[in-house]
Amino acid sequence: MSAGGSTVKGPNVLIIGAGGVGVITAYSLWFKNKCNVSVVIRSDYEIVSQVGYSIDSCDYGKIENWRPHSIHKTIEDSLSSKIFYDFIVVTTKNIPDGPVASRVSTILRPILTSNTEIDPKKESNILLIQNGIDLENEIIQTYSRDELENVTLLSGIQFIGSTKIGPGKIHQLGKDRLFVGGFDSCDIKARNASQEFIEIYSNEGYNIVEFEPRVRYARWKKLLYNAAINTTTALVQLDVPRTLEFAKNKDHTEKFIYEPAMREIIAIAASEGIIIEEEFIDFFINISRNLLFKPSMCVDREKNQLMELEIILGNPIKVAEKNNVPVPTLFLLYNLLTLVQSKLKEELGLLKFDEKTLKLQSTT
Amino acid sequence: MSAGGSTVKGPNVLIIGAGGVGVITAYSLWFKNKCNVSVVIRSDYEIVSQVGYSIDSCDYGKIENWRPHSIHKTIEDSLSSKIFYDFIVVTTKNIPDGPVASRVSTILRPILTSNTEIDPKKESNILLIQNGIDLENEIIQTYSRDELENVTLLSGIQFIGSTKIGPGKIHQLGKDRLFVGGFDSCDIKARNASQEFIEIYSNEGYNIVEFEPRVRYARWKKLLYNAAINTTTALVQLDVPRTLEFAKNKDHTEKFIYEPAMREIIAIAASEGIIIEEEFIDFFINISRNLLFKPSMCVDREKNQLMELEIILGNPIKVAEKNNVPVPTLFLLYNLLTLVQSKLKEELGLLKFDEKTLKLQSTT
Repeated sequence: MSAGGSTVKGPNVLIIGAGGVGVITAYSLWFKNKCNVSVVIRSDYEIVSQVGYSIDSCDYGKIENWRPHSIHKTIEDSLSSKIFYDFIVVTTKNIPDGPVASRVSTILRPILTSNTEIDPKKESNILLIQNGIDLENEIIQTYSRDELENVTLLSGIQFIGSTKIGPGKIHQLGKDRLFVGGFDSCDIKARNASQEFIEIYSNEGYNIVEFEPRVRYARWKKLLYNAAINTTTALVQLDVPRTLEFAKNKDHTEKFIYEPAMREIIAIAASEGIIIEEEFIDFFINISRNLLFKPSMCVDREKNQLMELEIILGNPIKVAEKNNVPVPTLFLLYNLLTLVQSKLKEELGLLKFDEKTLKLQSTT
Repeated sequence: MSAGGSTVKGPNVLIIGAGGVGVITAYSLWFKNKCNVSVVIRSDYEIVSQVGYSIDSCDYGKIENWRPHSIHKTIEDSLSSKIFYDFIVVTTKNIPDGPVASRVSTILRPILTSNTEIDPKKESNILLIQNGIDLENEIIQTYSRDELENVTLLSGIQFIGSTKIGPGKIHQLGKDRLFVGGFDSCDIKARNASQEFIEIYSNEGYNIVEFEPRVRYARWKKLLYNAAINTTTALVQLDVPRTLEFAKNKDHTEKFIYEPAMREIIAIAASEGIIIEEEFIDFFINISRNLLFKPSMCVDREKNQLMELEIILGNPIKVAEKNNVPVPTLFLLYNLLTLVQSKLKEELGLLKFDEKTLKLQSTT
């Protein structure tokens, strides 16, 4: 079922993942009124179809009873109206070690199949607004070259600080700044599609959206925050300012966890020829000190949801291993968080531990 | 109020701390029937005075409705009958960063004062059955030399795996092996007192209790387990076999957390001239693999109680810093667990974080 109808002249955008990021993304596109916004809303579908979203946004203010042009309970439902989706925006968590059904490549397949059936020549633009590094690999490795013929892969790096605080309730604390570019920075189609997306997304005076010619640089830069700070908050289950204030001498977290971890990310990026300026270490720590915020992995652990551990720590560590970059801080955080992730998987029924044999029985 | 009465010819023993360790200690002394056993029972006093303890012990079997010779709700209560306590056995958690009122030196003072009033010439033997290293320093530094004139400090290193699983309910999983000796291994009085305690504690065929001439060696050895494994389980909130099985490749926890952390403890001990054999690394990991057990710090975090972080990690790290021993694994675990400890302190009202200024307001 779809609520509302397509009424705007412009591209069709399908947003998958109606969390803190996805809903603000949807709202920004709807607000500009230059595209048709469809959103796949899994858990909150009933409440949103009845009363719409309640949004408290530092960019757009307090909004009640808002709905995008169309809402769908499932991907299949979003395909029933035979609309060609020009932009497929994925704002779900990216968890390659999670269930196959929730992997990005699995989610996208029926949409790409439907698009090809509707118009086999037209380009499908996939925009991944997600954390981490090397997340496009899962798609490139899963699909055949033929399947990717008319697919353009766009990378969205977002700084936003937006959280779903209840069913249909979104709280956006930090200004939306989105950087869009092709995963392949030489891809002209991706460059043009990025510009088109920026045009339908940008709301002057409200949000900031820019073309990012160096997507990989931007992703490594954002990883400074996520690999060091997001991970630590998940382990100790504290918001960011508390991790700084609660430290020994009030400085041990930044000096002996955040700074070394960030320096290791800088070293890994450098081993790939990407130079991240050291000043961003202080930049991210200062942001952290002044904003009462629980990053995504911390929230995931609290909510018993899987964390984006592999794209945030696993993939950088793979690059470090390939290029022989020592990363002792990141590796210890990763090995500790692997245990937390497995604990979450056990709670979600994704793995079983036999308390009689004391062995793991199966993994998914 | 004291329940029961002193009926045995032999020394008077006061046990402070009626948790998994304290109750089995009390039972072992009572079972031997060569001393009078008084226990200070704080939280479970009512239930124990009514129905006694329910103990499920791998050493002594299932015991119902058991009570020691005397039980007391408070230290003050234990002193009202003007008994000279020959042995004061402390089986509480040792948390020097916790509230002053629960520090070992604070707890002991009224008992030592009472003993001196009753018989100023008689020796008070203090036995600390607690984890960690350098825990005697708090007592030595707090008391004057005069106050310690007739005090003998005994060190108890216990391997037991006993937990309070409910009010008045104790579950002892691992055989009780207790090693007793003087903190100062040259102290003849401590040696004699240790032998006397062993005599009243040893139950042949049930428990194992031995004189330990090298207390410091034994404490560093036990720290291999506690500094590496106990700490990690507290961070990830898993029992020990799960920390091994849930690891990447099922070996990353032992290879990249437990082994490096234990090697660092060995290196710190070596910097003090104490040689811990490397084979104990495998020994402790193999024990861990085969026993479904949640160590004390993990249980403390689950129960929102302060952890013995300083005596298990803080003190060894101080020695490492003094002797310039690099301990990157232990230091990262320590800095992470300091945040968890502060979180627990905040929950217990021992520190306040102002969410407006994002600053710590006070500490105790």
